[in-house]
Amino acid sequence: MNTFLDIVKKCDNFPYPDEYDEENLMHNVVPLLLNNVKIGLIYKTTIPVLKKYNEQHKKPCPFIIEETFVTFASHLNTFEELTQAIKNLLEVWREEKAFPALEGWRDELYPVYGPSNLAFVMERSGTPIFGLLTFGIHLSAYVRTSEGKLKMWIAKRSTTKSTWPGRLDNTVAGGISYKLTVKETVIKEAMEEASLPEEIAEKAVPVGAITYFIVTKNGLQPEVEYVYDLELPIDVKPKPLDGEVECFYLWDIDEVKKRILADEFKPNCALVVIDFMIRHSIITPENEPAYLEILSRLHRRHEFPAPSF
Amino acid sequence: MNTFLDIVKKCDNFPYPDEYDEENLMHNVVPLLLNNVKIGLIYKTTIPVLKKYNEQHKKPCPFIIEETFVTFASHLNTFEELTQAIKNLLEVWREEKAFPALEGWRDELYPVYGPSNLAFVMERSGTPIFGLLTFGIHLSAYVRTSEGKLKMWIAKRSTTKSTWPGRLDNTVAGGISYKLTVKETVIKEAMEEASLPEEIAEKAVPVGAITYFIVTKNGLQPEVEYVYDLELPIDVKPKPLDGEVECFYLWDIDEVKKRILADEFKPNCALVVIDFMIRHSIITPENEPAYLEILSRLHRRHEFPAPSF
Repeated sequence: MNTFLDIVKKCDNFPYPDEYDEENLMHNVVPLLLNNVKIGLIYKTTIPVLKKYNEQHKKPCPFIIEETFVTFASHLNTFEELTQAIKNLLEVWREEKAFPALEGWRDELYPVYGPSNLAFVMERSGTPIFGLLTFGIHLSAYVRTSEGKLKMWIAKRSTTKSTWPGRLDNTVAGGISYKLTVKETVIKEAMEEASLPEEIAEKAVPVGAITYFIVTKNGLQPEVEYVYDLELPIDVKPKPLDGEVECFYLWDIDEVKKRILADEFKPNCALVVIDFMIRHSIITPENEPAYLEILSRLHRRHEFPAPSF
Repeated sequence: MNTFLDIVKKCDNFPYPDEYDEENLMHNVVPLLLNNVKIGLIYKTTIPVLKKYNEQHKKPCPFIIEETFVTFASHLNTFEELTQAIKNLLEVWREEKAFPALEGWRDELYPVYGPSNLAFVMERSGTPIFGLLTFGIHLSAYVRTSEGKLKMWIAKRSTTKSTWPGRLDNTVAGGISYKLTVKETVIKEAMEEASLPEEIAEKAVPVGAITYFIVTKNGLQPEVEYVYDLELPIDVKPKPLDGEVECFYLWDIDEVKKRILADEFKPNCALVVIDFMIRHSIITPENEPAYLEILSRLHRRHEFPAPSF
């Protein structure tokens, strides 16, 4: 049987500095720098693939590849130049089927932040190859019954989704694409995923963010999820719209807990529910021995530049 | 004018690993080990003072003092032996006026945790000399006006308190002494500091914890504060009882914000209010550029053992 901490560690699974040893991941990565600032991490096994691309590329080479870091060549300076360089690279790698991550190609641009805010944009599915920080929103809709009990609206992901098919999910969740704000993403996803109109979705309140670092078969994913709560009247029911969600369940807290501990949630969605349960006094210092470790893992410090929205 | 991030950094002011350089604090400390596990940090300037004590002590010496760490001698194994060894040391240092921290002697025992939960107890005022993790509770009482606006009950510390006299404080706050649980500390302090009886204080709900590392003139203070919210009816007013609080103010959110940014709060109490404002959607991703950095600094990962309550 899992504990809440086990579930948190399945998501926040990149080692912490005091856990580094010769065996672990940290020794298998090098930083990706932009203007001398670390903006991502690259597996050492990716370096030969990147070197090959660099050498086959018509001069000047787009990347500078050293033993201890990778960075962009000095002729790449502007948003447009950096964006184009990464686009060219990812299109070649997609064609070559060089990385499994790119098989989930989304045709969706993600912003990448550097030392002075937005640096460039790139295809979403390529971000784990460079360990780039990505951003999303997760919304938990809940109802309070007439007896004052909380119930949560939990989504079941479509079994045809490319990532985590069939797993349980928050009511609404989605990545923050280029040019969308946090709040705009909430409004857009609330309609697309749960058929919740703007006049309802705009009542969602921001209550924090979870930050963690997950390593998956696709690569290195340091992530930020802005967290929203939305109390719904008992007669407002989320409904699937865009095919990404199979159905919604309205479950009492014990059922939700059981499903989390049974590892039925998509990993980061479990973390959002655990954060909800801490803020709503369901998980407490008295009933959860790992309360402090869970709280710090839900708010991991990322050493990469982040946006100011 | 300060930002919220400036205020957070005044409290969480111990450098992070990626901020280490030759100038900074990290190179001036060595770990305090217990059974090979790091439980605290000691300034290198404290080492000669500890060596002198060790040498003057009748054999066997209580401490093993190496270039890169300090630990307890192998004849000190039990809770009682460790507790007595630290007690003897601190009494000598208090007599010698060796450390300013000990001038605030409290006659209050704090628990110290090791690799297998509680390791020993020591006088509260001595903990910053060894950079030991300490624990407290902070409670924010608030009211919701008939128009739905939030107001917060803010305490003003007595001008005769040894620490942070005259600064603003949360409604109720206090350290968790040996043998008290988190919840017992809430109930006890609610009465002692704010005259709130148990039947009211027990309605306080746990909503998380803040964790940070502050360096003060007393030494190194990695701290955990369990955070409670308490919604009070408009006619229940906290009142000073034990002389630690001068008075209470019921302020609207704008007034509280202004006082935080003017740096009128005790540093960690400002962090508790900032956490409250994030959870209550007053500080949002849209209005706070440093939202993510603030959230991770409010939940700093401590590399020391912590209790399971």
